[in-house]
Amino acid sequence: MSASVDPASSATGATGYPEELREVVERHLETLRFPARSAGVAGLEEAMRYSLLAGGKRIRPVLALATARATGVPHEQVLPLAAAIELIHTYSLIHDDLPAMDDDDLRRGRPTCHVAYGEDVAILAGDALYAEAFHLLLRDGARAGVPADRLLAAATELADATGVDGMVGGQYLDVQGVEAGGDAAAALRTLHGLKTGRLIGASVGGVLRLAGLGDDEAAPYRRFADELGVLFQIVDDILDVTGSDADLGKPQGSDERHGKRTYVTEYGLEGARAMAARHHRAAVVSLDAAGPDAATDLRTLTDFIHTRTN
Amino acid sequence: MSASVDPASSATGATGYPEELREVVERHLETLRFPARSAGVAGLEEAMRYSLLAGGKRIRPVLALATARATGVPHEQVLPLAAAIELIHTYSLIHDDLPAMDDDDLRRGRPTCHVAYGEDVAILAGDALYAEAFHLLLRDGARAGVPADRLLAAATELADATGVDGMVGGQYLDVQGVEAGGDAAAALRTLHGLKTGRLIGASVGGVLRLAGLGDDEAAPYRRFADELGVLFQIVDDILDVTGSDADLGKPQGSDERHGKRTYVTEYGLEGARAMAARHHRAAVVSLDAAGPDAATDLRTLTDFIHTRTN
Repeated sequence: MSASVDPASSATGATGYPEELREVVERHLETLRFPARSAGVAGLEEAMRYSLLAGGKRIRPVLALATARATGVPHEQVLPLAAAIELIHTYSLIHDDLPAMDDDDLRRGRPTCHVAYGEDVAILAGDALYAEAFHLLLRDGARAGVPADRLLAAATELADATGVDGMVGGQYLDVQGVEAGGDAAAALRTLHGLKTGRLIGASVGGVLRLAGLGDDEAAPYRRFADELGVLFQIVDDILDVTGSDADLGKPQGSDERHGKRTYVTEYGLEGARAMAARHHRAAVVSLDAAGPDAATDLRTLTDFIHTRTN
Repeated sequence: MSASVDPASSATGATGYPEELREVVERHLETLRFPARSAGVAGLEEAMRYSLLAGGKRIRPVLALATARATGVPHEQVLPLAAAIELIHTYSLIHDDLPAMDDDDLRRGRPTCHVAYGEDVAILAGDALYAEAFHLLLRDGARAGVPADRLLAAATELADATGVDGMVGGQYLDVQGVEAGGDAAAALRTLHGLKTGRLIGASVGGVLRLAGLGDDEAAPYRRFADELGVLFQIVDDILDVTGSDADLGKPQGSDERHGKRTYVTEYGLEGARAMAARHHRAAVVSLDAAGPDAATDLRTLTDFIHTRTN
């Protein structure tokens, strides 16, 4: 579905964001239904959709779609991966917000999943989103004609990026807390490299697998994704200090309230801004190396992430 | 690894359980390491291994290995799937035991994961086990030479069996509680069919996918797995009433304490025993239909599940 987008187009909205790709993602997510034998399971699906359809920029799936455009992967072949990534991102937010973790009541301006549906249902909604992410990716990817070996490679990368050496490992480091001291900055890079960087990396890397790119062709895209992941997190830390509650969809200053070490606590606001500018430049240089096809949407997205206000 | 087991052998231990297959599983699980970039993540791996290596009969992976023997799938090709299934089973136990769910302190005679490591780490250990299950299955399955299309089909079935229309959906029905009334028995069958039955089904069905069996050849094995899943749950409910704490590794009567409806509350102890005998017979008839190769280990396992004491 939704293969009607002109691959040559790169229209951006007034916000400087590839809105057209975001709308493709949004429409696709709205069509998803999670098959249930039993009517009794409808409440679980409701909790999943409550969190999944809470809006947001959909940066990861938009990044996947933009990478697909740059590497010639057809829309219908990348959508299952893009959706799976957003399901996994949503699951991670639900679990991160739980009372036993960050204990946040508000997310994107609405009560968090456990506030709305209870802690037990929120845990299960996260678990189910994760399972359905792989289910969608594998089933719909095969139906869309992705060759089996490429689909396997993409799914393997996604599983790795979300496990011990990825997103969940990063959240573990986050709940353990980064100690102050000489290695605090390195520990912070590791934490965010796992917690945030690897899923952003898989949003690009998974598509490179679908495209069947060799290591040499893929390398500049992978460097780009690494730089983008760091840039994203630095800007996130800056916004937690400078953004308004309305911009953030959650109370400003939540990192400080949780006593978290961030790029701002480590390097100061101006230091963090200078770092962001360096990583933005490095990301753009990597895109240049990837070739002219990579320029439009990925460049737009990179600029947006550097300057985004929510 | 562990491909040294003689496929023709079907030695059973003194317990009437295919101990040789259990030992293959146990050795394989002990060798698993979850790759981590950061030494800081070692505590997460420790919590995962604490729950994964807590012993138990390993019924699901043993079932997978026995099905592989019956259908000619080489040992090294089925081990990644068998391990993935046990990782997923372990994750489901960790999340089921959480304070927000069943709030159980004891599992297999030891403190549950959240008692030993804290609620936040337990949630993440479960999440990470699920991710690493797919990571192992996809990566090691490919390395073991499983054709890509068969590996995809097995992984798709496993994801489906553990999502909304599977294990997590069943746990959702469980925390919602089954209402008394005319449809209570049907609701109970649906609940356990999802919560327990589908992962047992995937322990057989995933192997049928690896074997590349057509629907007609697979059908008797699938009927067998359906009957075995129901048998397993009925016996589990009976044991919760009749077993000792030591046998169960948890306090006897926990279903009753949680106010859960079970096959015993619905049909009485004798009624439940009669049902178990019927489903045992139906499972054996299905095995007969699957052919002589299916008889040995799968029959042993079926008899064990019918008469098991822990």
